[in-house]
Amino acid sequence: MRIDRNRLEAAFNELGKIGETPNGGLTRLALTDADRRARDRMVAWMKEAGLRVSVDRMGNIFGERSGTEALPPVMLGSHVDSVPTGGKYDGQLGVLCALEVIRSLNDGDIRTRHPVTLSIFTNEEGARFQPAMIASGVLAGKIALEDAYNATDRDGIRLVDELERIGYLGPEPCVPRPLRAYLELHIEQGPLLEEEERSVGVVEGIVGISWSRLTLRGIQDHAGPTPMRGRRDALVAAAEVVRAVRAIPGQVSAAMVATVGRLEVSPNIPNAIPGSVRMSVDLRDPNEEQLTRALALLDRAVKNAAASEGVSHELTHYWRVPPTPFHPEVVGAVERAAQALGARHRRILSGAGHDAQYMATICPAGMIFVPSRNGRSHCEEEFTAWEEIEPGANTLLLATLELAQQV
Amino acid sequence: MRIDRNRLEAAFNELGKIGETPNGGLTRLALTDADRRARDRMVAWMKEAGLRVSVDRMGNIFGERSGTEALPPVMLGSHVDSVPTGGKYDGQLGVLCALEVIRSLNDGDIRTRHPVTLSIFTNEEGARFQPAMIASGVLAGKIALEDAYNATDRDGIRLVDELERIGYLGPEPCVPRPLRAYLELHIEQGPLLEEEERSVGVVEGIVGISWSRLTLRGIQDHAGPTPMRGRRDALVAAAEVVRAVRAIPGQVSAAMVATVGRLEVSPNIPNAIPGSVRMSVDLRDPNEEQLTRALALLDRAVKNAAASEGVSHELTHYWRVPPTPFHPEVVGAVERAAQALGARHRRILSGAGHDAQYMATICPAGMIFVPSRNGRSHCEEEFTAWEEIEPGANTLLLATLELAQQV
Repeated sequence: MRIDRNRLEAAFNELGKIGETPNGGLTRLALTDADRRARDRMVAWMKEAGLRVSVDRMGNIFGERSGTEALPPVMLGSHVDSVPTGGKYDGQLGVLCALEVIRSLNDGDIRTRHPVTLSIFTNEEGARFQPAMIASGVLAGKIALEDAYNATDRDGIRLVDELERIGYLGPEPCVPRPLRAYLELHIEQGPLLEEEERSVGVVEGIVGISWSRLTLRGIQDHAGPTPMRGRRDALVAAAEVVRAVRAIPGQVSAAMVATVGRLEVSPNIPNAIPGSVRMSVDLRDPNEEQLTRALALLDRAVKNAAASEGVSHELTHYWRVPPTPFHPEVVGAVERAAQALGARHRRILSGAGHDAQYMATICPAGMIFVPSRNGRSHCEEEFTAWEEIEPGANTLLLATLELAQQV
Repeated sequence: MRIDRNRLEAAFNELGKIGETPNGGLTRLALTDADRRARDRMVAWMKEAGLRVSVDRMGNIFGERSGTEALPPVMLGSHVDSVPTGGKYDGQLGVLCALEVIRSLNDGDIRTRHPVTLSIFTNEEGARFQPAMIASGVLAGKIALEDAYNATDRDGIRLVDELERIGYLGPEPCVPRPLRAYLELHIEQGPLLEEEERSVGVVEGIVGISWSRLTLRGIQDHAGPTPMRGRRDALVAAAEVVRAVRAIPGQVSAAMVATVGRLEVSPNIPNAIPGSVRMSVDLRDPNEEQLTRALALLDRAVKNAAASEGVSHELTHYWRVPPTPFHPEVVGAVERAAQALGARHRRILSGAGHDAQYMATICPAGMIFVPSRNGRSHCEEEFTAWEEIEPGANTLLLATLELAQQV
């Protein structure tokens, strides 16, 4: 049996209109009105597919298709929030492929021993509320519900208030539950599958991630009459840190990536020497010890940059997710499914964080990647051809049948 | 005769409350409600002092004290707008010292052949609308009125609409007019007077200023799965430019200063490789040719930084004011006044732009500096002691008497 590509494509096109940007990308920040409309659309489809829909206290949405026995479900999930001016494939493709799997099971009147549950996680991106994957983090017992509720966006608005405002502050407890497996289809967001012309990535695990926050404080002064000697320019020190962060992977490991994605200058006018700079540092590596080495290099680089410009610094490593190996049984099921389909596939590691990372701490978990054109994501140009999506979606279907045990 | 320091201090304390920050600084951006309230206060005081008040089409405010003859006036002026979280001395001290000079002339019933006019210029700082000194630029015929009207702030609000909203879109033409002289008292905003323990700076001229705008465009992508090889990170290129700008003065001249004051990253989230960066470059030198050399270095540095990161660049040198020597007669009058007072003084060059720069193109102009503690300005810590202000204000008084020719 196979999924219905035309039906999947139609659902993708319809959902993709909600929060669509003029250039065909997506801006659908977590818990905004656009997010609410996308959730409402999904819930309606889930009910049409006969799923029992529930919402938990973090706004995570679940839709269960019964199994023939009272066993823990196989959960298929992803998210429908996006980054600002992001793409249409990140997150919602996984949710829609899961929906299509369920619709195909319905069409074929297929029975499985384990229930199959579609899940939509709140605020996966971390673009509006930090940290990312906050709601699967709470579900896995790794983030306190209260901390998540009190996360605020740039305007100081609390996550819990937005959950309530858009009508997705559900009654179900958001706590670990017994699951047969968790499986997530997602775009690769990197160039490897495309470079090797493979349609399916059998994801073996996710790299470790560390997020740091740095504030540099110099002396704000007039850019004209203040001589170069004795300047304490927070932006000059920040520029040194940006350079140092770029150089860290070369000193640590070939698999490491390091990024300064956010940088804010104060007072940020042409004729004032910057008095302070706030910036983010994102470090990732498949190996926990390499990550620890990188953080030590970052500490030293910040100290040196601050000292050489005479500015003070405050560096906080505020979020860390260890490298996550996926469960051999789930990885095996994905690989067998791809093989059965004759899809060109390879084992691969995820450089991006996903809800699967937290889910892996409470049940056997795995992921399926489909290629990203030019490796690009988190941008409007994000794209995957339907010829590449179809084998991935069918891999999800067959792996689900194996894990849920078709009767 | 001498100014009344207590009266000056009282006026300073009263005006300084309008737009005061919690730390005792000033946020009074041009044409905001705070600016309007400060203008209203000044106009009331000017009328109380018997001045004939008029407002021109750029919102510049003038208050004339008659002379004994129908001759061009001596103009004493400065501004009442500030940068964000700036200080209380920049601008308003000059306006209030000019008011105090006029009040002192009134007290002594002093007659002068030339009228004496107090002027308050709109949007001197350039913090809200670019370029800086826009209204004296229009008055001097160097900036077209229409261009100034269409200048927009960060929210896209036009200067002319704000002029109208706060009630300062006056009827007087904003065009060059005959003036006996223009004289402006201002804080030094640099460390020289303090270092040499002098109270009065006899300003010989203003350095040349060049403002550039740079946009770097790389490839926005996910910070996780995008390998370091092949990244086109606009912020990494921007960091190279910040470093290069810092290094330019060392290659050109000891008197040059170079600053990146503004830098904005897009999309500016922790887990996206910056797709684009917009930034400002401020270059200043007393020598026009050095400035031209510095701009050539900047062009090359931008080209190199962009090429080495594989990003595109757009660099515009959009504003340039040539070095301005002040008029020997006005400089002489200031020096003679300081000498007559027995004030410790020195000749000095201004590193900051001032309305006097544009005024010097239409009449004999000059400036008086008073010391800045630790050389600091454009910050809440900006400070000048009253013992230092008093000799400066009296220098303004005596120089005015000489130029306006006391009868």
